[in-house]
Amino acid sequence: MPSKARIAVAIGCTAAVLLANTAFAQFRKNEDAVDYRQSAFTLMSNHMGRLAAMAKGEQPYDAEAAKQSARLIHVVSQLPWEAFVPGSDKDGARLKDDPWAKADEFRKLQERLAGETDKLVEASGDLDALRKQVGATGAACKACHDQFRKI
Amino acid sequence: MPSKARIAVAIGCTAAVLLANTAFAQFRKNEDAVDYRQSAFTLMSNHMGRLAAMAKGEQPYDAEAAKQSARLIHVVSQLPWEAFVPGSDKDGARLKDDPWAKADEFRKLQERLAGETDKLVEASGDLDALRKQVGATGAACKACHDQFRKI
Repeated sequence: MPSKARIAVAIGCTAAVLLANTAFAQFRKNEDAVDYRQSAFTLMSNHMGRLAAMAKGEQPYDAEAAKQSARLIHVVSQLPWEAFVPGSDKDGARLKDDPWAKADEFRKLQERLAGETDKLVEASGDLDALRKQVGATGAACKACHDQFRKI
Repeated sequence: MPSKARIAVAIGCTAAVLLANTAFAQFRKNEDAVDYRQSAFTLMSNHMGRLAAMAKGEQPYDAEAAKQSARLIHVVSQLPWEAFVPGSDKDGARLKDDPWAKADEFRKLQERLAGETDKLVEASGDLDALRKQVGATGAACKACHDQFRKI
């Protein structure tokens, strides 16, 4: 598949997942919501690690694997937000600030991440571009962690 | 996007993810592998629950949401298998049989699931087809759980 088509595929997936988030409440209990969002973060973190290893030269650059990780990050990073249901601040949650009271800030950080992961898909086909965009994407992750995630 | 194009998008994503699995070892320690595969299963289970709720009439059928869940299941269900790294039978693992000693059986069950989730994407656009295919997909999940997963 030519690279433009691959990117179109990734964007198609993302649009689909974004729509899914508006469907209806999907968690029987708060614990399930915490588990769901942490699962999405675990997959994202693992694939960010794969890209970072290539960016740092700890693993050889594999354009196909990089694109696949970037696409997965882009899709899965749309998932956690609906799982921040009000009241789900316990049951293993690692919140240090209040995403419901600061909904606008929280949403802006989500939008920043979505923008960066979108660029990450495009950048993944070239090692120099990937290096830069892994940094920018990681910074978007960190901005939200710094404010909202308990270490 | 017309439905054929949407299905093509989902298949494109899956092919991409399948390729990613062959790249290189991706887990620093066995605990990370267990966490990764359980995270993928958590997302799959949640979205199977969404589809089952529609199939049973517990939630109204929403063709878009159903397609999106089916596509996500299809993509994410490719992820866990590389995380069954030899030795990762502890650290919260819930194995009752040995997927490494029974690698052929384990692989066949993975292939069965991949076939059913592929059909699930197609079936998700029609409630009657979805009902049937949620059953077939759930049976593929169960076949593997019955043999390999500790309850």
